[in-house]
Amino acid sequence: MSQISSGNGPHVLRTLNATAVLTALRGHGPARIADLVGATGLSRPAVSRALDALRDAGWIIDADPTDPADATRLGRPAQRVRFHAESGYVLGIDVGPHKILAMLADLAGVVVAERRADTHRLTGAGPVLDAVRDTVTEVLAAAEVAADAVVSTVVGTPGLVDPDGTVRLAPSIPGWAGIPIATELRGVVSGPLHLYNDVNLAVLAERWRGAATDADTLLFLQWGARIGAGILIGGQLHRGAAAAAGEIGFLDLADEPTGTPGATMGPFEREVAASALIDAALAEAGKRGDAELTERLSRARDTADTTPLFAAARAGNPAAVAAIDRIAARLARGLAAACLVLDPDLVVIGGGVSRAGDILLAAVERHLRARTLVPPPLALSALGDTAVALGAIRSALDDVEQRLLTTNPLAGR
Amino acid sequence: MSQISSGNGPHVLRTLNATAVLTALRGHGPARIADLVGATGLSRPAVSRALDALRDAGWIIDADPTDPADATRLGRPAQRVRFHAESGYVLGIDVGPHKILAMLADLAGVVVAERRADTHRLTGAGPVLDAVRDTVTEVLAAAEVAADAVVSTVVGTPGLVDPDGTVRLAPSIPGWAGIPIATELRGVVSGPLHLYNDVNLAVLAERWRGAATDADTLLFLQWGARIGAGILIGGQLHRGAAAAAGEIGFLDLADEPTGTPGATMGPFEREVAASALIDAALAEAGKRGDAELTERLSRARDTADTTPLFAAARAGNPAAVAAIDRIAARLARGLAAACLVLDPDLVVIGGGVSRAGDILLAAVERHLRARTLVPPPLALSALGDTAVALGAIRSALDDVEQRLLTTNPLAGR
Repeated sequence: MSQISSGNGPHVLRTLNATAVLTALRGHGPARIADLVGATGLSRPAVSRALDALRDAGWIIDADPTDPADATRLGRPAQRVRFHAESGYVLGIDVGPHKILAMLADLAGVVVAERRADTHRLTGAGPVLDAVRDTVTEVLAAAEVAADAVVSTVVGTPGLVDPDGTVRLAPSIPGWAGIPIATELRGVVSGPLHLYNDVNLAVLAERWRGAATDADTLLFLQWGARIGAGILIGGQLHRGAAAAAGEIGFLDLADEPTGTPGATMGPFEREVAASALIDAALAEAGKRGDAELTERLSRARDTADTTPLFAAARAGNPAAVAAIDRIAARLARGLAAACLVLDPDLVVIGGGVSRAGDILLAAVERHLRARTLVPPPLALSALGDTAVALGAIRSALDDVEQRLLTTNPLAGR
Repeated sequence: MSQISSGNGPHVLRTLNATAVLTALRGHGPARIADLVGATGLSRPAVSRALDALRDAGWIIDADPTDPADATRLGRPAQRVRFHAESGYVLGIDVGPHKILAMLADLAGVVVAERRADTHRLTGAGPVLDAVRDTVTEVLAAAEVAADAVVSTVVGTPGLVDPDGTVRLAPSIPGWAGIPIATELRGVVSGPLHLYNDVNLAVLAERWRGAATDADTLLFLQWGARIGAGILIGGQLHRGAAAAAGEIGFLDLADEPTGTPGATMGPFEREVAASALIDAALAEAGKRGDAELTERLSRARDTADTTPLFAAARAGNPAAVAAIDRIAARLARGLAAACLVLDPDLVVIGGGVSRAGDILLAAVERHLRARTLVPPPLALSALGDTAVALGAIRSALDDVEQRLLTTNPLAGR
């Protein structure tokens, strides 16, 4: 409250009015002054003054009447302005165990370029960091955007991320833990760079453009070679006291503790992750004497490739269907615990295992019903393997918006 | 933003300034104008105008220089004002399976009276509601406060509470579910009345005046005849999509589902609640041929009274200590799941079983370490069986503050 005093009233009001006009413009296409008067409740002279100031600061530009998207439909063109989305760009980068995916978006969130790199054969943090730098250079070149036009960058990584941008406990990328990743990558582009847990970014993407646009309390299950959860509460990411919220791969549901804290894989993910699913299918195929499925699964086992298993299940193979049901039952045991604690609006299942599709979803739903007081609605991820990079874009836009709302948009661009 | 326009600027500023001054006064004792200028950053004339308006609206009064608490220490008395805490009262009521506890507090949160009633022998919702009404009448009479001076009332109850103030699923008070409790109790006092889950109120009390005043993300375990958890995230109560967050009594950790949804007790509480603890101690005493403990526990078993068990454990009885350790191990299995999901700053253990004290706390801590990635700090509740009523007071004060901050404090008292 203290900054709003009669002593600095007029100046503060100008800033508030400019922020209100900018917020209204960012949510819409090109607008006339009359539209903004309606959207903000401000007077016409106040909107005009705010527009002049925002134009000088570079946040808005006049709409182009020759652009079909910007043109007025009839009669003489009224002056219209729009948010200057191209006045800056944000970068979202997914650094995973197998790939790097870099996405570049304008300030309206439109993705203007993306580039991938395969990291299967890279060993150690140095080569992975070099590959990230190369991928960023490529995505900027593809969009013809200069590095100093990037106003915010967010990087997603497996593992627990310390507030200073160092990764703790990231067994899926050997050599990655303990490296000050954020520091290493600053300087590749301009503007702030933040490093976050990949699953936490995926949950933001599901809420933004995925399967959970209406959910306030959301549990996102990243289910693949490992398993983890991202949690939104009241629309906000819940990271936890040690940034370890949602690490349900380490759930230990046995009567006696089975997990060694700090082990590569947690007790729960050893039971339900992709390789456990393939093992269960091999056991079911063996029991049924299904030699063909056994052979196909044996070949896929080394790389934990679930593609042949899911193809067999979709074709109605009984061993494949039974294996999915058995692992869904195990998954439900841990997922039910998370649901009883959180009582979410929605559970979204993503990651490689979610590609099993509706067979998997129906099995999880059935087993979950037997173990929860209030079974939550379930949905499959709509974003596939772009969720982390898209969530990084959303997080970088949030960073820009936060700075916009807490600083004077008319000063220091 | 839209309400802050140049058109209504001076009026809005007056309201904001009055709110700033009132907020500063509520946090402190009597203050001079100079103190408030320092606390708010407002100019001296602006503070004076705000004080005049707040005095007219009844929110503040002149401090009494003859009251030692209000007196200036030296020299001629400067005019000092204070928040008029007695201008209204809030009521917090705990309606439990065994007792009613009603607390009356002024707007500064000072408890001015409390009254208890025993509800052991009451059957059905009607007699319990009558006892609540009587207890409220008594607590108001004890403090000589009129019913129309109560500006907000909060009632805590076991079970899931619907937004309309009806209880669902409250097996611990027979006949209680399905009754529109909030509607039944409105009219007993003036002002709004809200009904919330008891464990959710206890967690607010622990943060306000208990063991968790520094915790932002807090898991409060109510561990007695049953078990449930209250959850604070970012200092805010997390209720969940169906107001069922934290219902960990229904955790089902067995390989095959054991719980019937809607059953009186959930699978997890059947394993760890007070009666399971006594059963475990009876088994340990039998194994050791401890006839004396067996006899004392057999008498306590019907009422699930843990007093003799905890006395024996404190005296070093091996069977009692072993039983506490065994149940602590079972508890850790479910608590670890909640901690892996939430990664809380702190876990506070309350309820009747928490009276076992440090023996229990140390055992839970040890078993939890083997099952969590980041073991959270643990603490025992500091509030005993007043936590729910105190949390109801805190919630009622929050209601008053919310109305104060979202409405004009200078209008419509």
